[in-house]
Amino acid sequence: MAAMKVHGNPLSTSTQRVLACLYEKDVEFQFVNVDMGAGQHKSETFLSLNPFGQVPAFEQGDLKLFESRAITQYISQEYTDKGTQLLLPDSNKTMAVLQLWKEVEAHHFDSPSTKLVFELHYKPIFGMATDTEVVEENEGALAKVLDVYEARLAESKYLACDNFTLVDLHHLPNVHYLMGSSAKKLFDSRPHVSAWVADITARSAWSKVLEMQKL
Amino acid sequence: MAAMKVHGNPLSTSTQRVLACLYEKDVEFQFVNVDMGAGQHKSETFLSLNPFGQVPAFEQGDLKLFESRAITQYISQEYTDKGTQLLLPDSNKTMAVLQLWKEVEAHHFDSPSTKLVFELHYKPIFGMATDTEVVEENEGALAKVLDVYEARLAESKYLACDNFTLVDLHHLPNVHYLMGSSAKKLFDSRPHVSAWVADITARSAWSKVLEMQKL
Ligand SMILES: N[C@@H](CCC(=O)N[C@@H](CS)C(=O)NCC(=O)O)C(=O)O
Ligand SMILES: N[C@@H](CCC(=O)N[C@@H](CS)C(=O)NCC(=O)O)C(=O)O
Repeated sequence: MAAMKVHGNPLSTSTQRVLACLYEKDVEFQFVNVDMGAGQHKSETFLSLNPFGQVPAFEQGDLKLFESRAITQYISQEYTDKGTQLLLPDSNKTMAVLQLWKEVEAHHFDSPSTKLVFELHYKPIFGMATDTEVVEENEGALAKVLDVYEARLAESKYLACDNFTLVDLHHLPNVHYLMGSSAKKLFDSRPHVSAWVADITARSAWSKVLEMQKL
Repeated sequence: MAAMKVHGNPLSTSTQRVLACLYEKDVEFQFVNVDMGAGQHKSETFLSLNPFGQVPAFEQGDLKLFESRAITQYISQEYTDKGTQLLLPDSNKTMAVLQLWKEVEAHHFDSPSTKLVFELHYKPIFGMATDTEVVEENEGALAKVLDVYEARLAESKYLACDNFTLVDLHHLPNVHYLMGSSAKKLFDSRPHVSAWVADITARSAWSKVLEMQKL
């Protein structure tokens, strides 16, 4: 099989989602660094990989993908027998429950958490002023999502079931940055959410993603 | 197999997504109307089906789902041999390409189009004033997405490949309402997008969804 190539940046949350998956699956890949400071993600070469001009992008022979969650799904499916099993391939019903919680991450968790990561983590780095109104609004939205997670995680150890899956993995980058911000309180104040965060951020695959930021 | 039950409202775009899928697959189901005007989607009974208090929700025996796109994926997979084939089950690679365009709908098309449907379709119905700033911003965002679609649809008849799939189906509700609004121009001015819209909105399964609004 042709080698897997990931084009991205170790500081980008969407790239980190794909890297976490590759390390969990323990499969070889080539990392192609995209210099976003130099605007390389808007170059013609990169736009031919992803017309939206965003990292990450993925190649394996003639298969070209973008969108981090489509890439993680492909890797989890194609390398189902390698490393951590990230799917629930037993039946259409177990996969449907996994899919449901993947959708919750995408349609409920992603938007407020991404906006908070931008306001509370990236803006200060770039010397930009945090917009407190945006923070308040999105902390409110995120709190409601975490209430649902708290109830869910009282029933099962992870979001889709009692095993770590792609659902939990998809949360890692934003959870990581929010735990280093004032939004940490939203997680800490919910005991099951807090235990889940401690568990998923302690995975060795995730440490490897963070180590790539030091290169 | 236990009967499928869809809890929803024929006027809700997310419910329509699931109904369109059921009619394409030509499978029997029971529709349970949720009276949103009376706040039934925030009742305890409904919250036990979907803790976010949103339609649609889905039941089949002990399987309980919510999130429209998780429901359509389950139905398409479980009834793969019935009605229209909405997936590309040939290989992990073909499924990955389908997944990629599903993610594009979810992460690029859905947000601006949903906000426009709210401003241009629902607000006037409820006697609320349309916010022209929100309209402008989201028309700008949607135009960029439709530029990518125009290029894609010059290469393949539908978004994932030359066949109608779940990807195209997921667009139907918002496309339908936007074609009846001032945002129509964004579709009409792009020839391949415009032909695609004409094609997918003419499907008989979609007509059946619209007919349910008259009941
Ligand atoms: N939905 C996309 C989001 C990708 C994304 O937002 N990437 C960011 C970095 S985390 C980016 O490239 N931003 C630059 C830009 O949008 O111009 C995915 O999951 O891959
Ligand atoms: N991501 C969800 C969205 C569901 C949704 O937004 N449903 C709307 C109707 S289209 C709703 O129930 N709104 C009432 C509310 O949010 O309180 C899905 O695809 O099912």
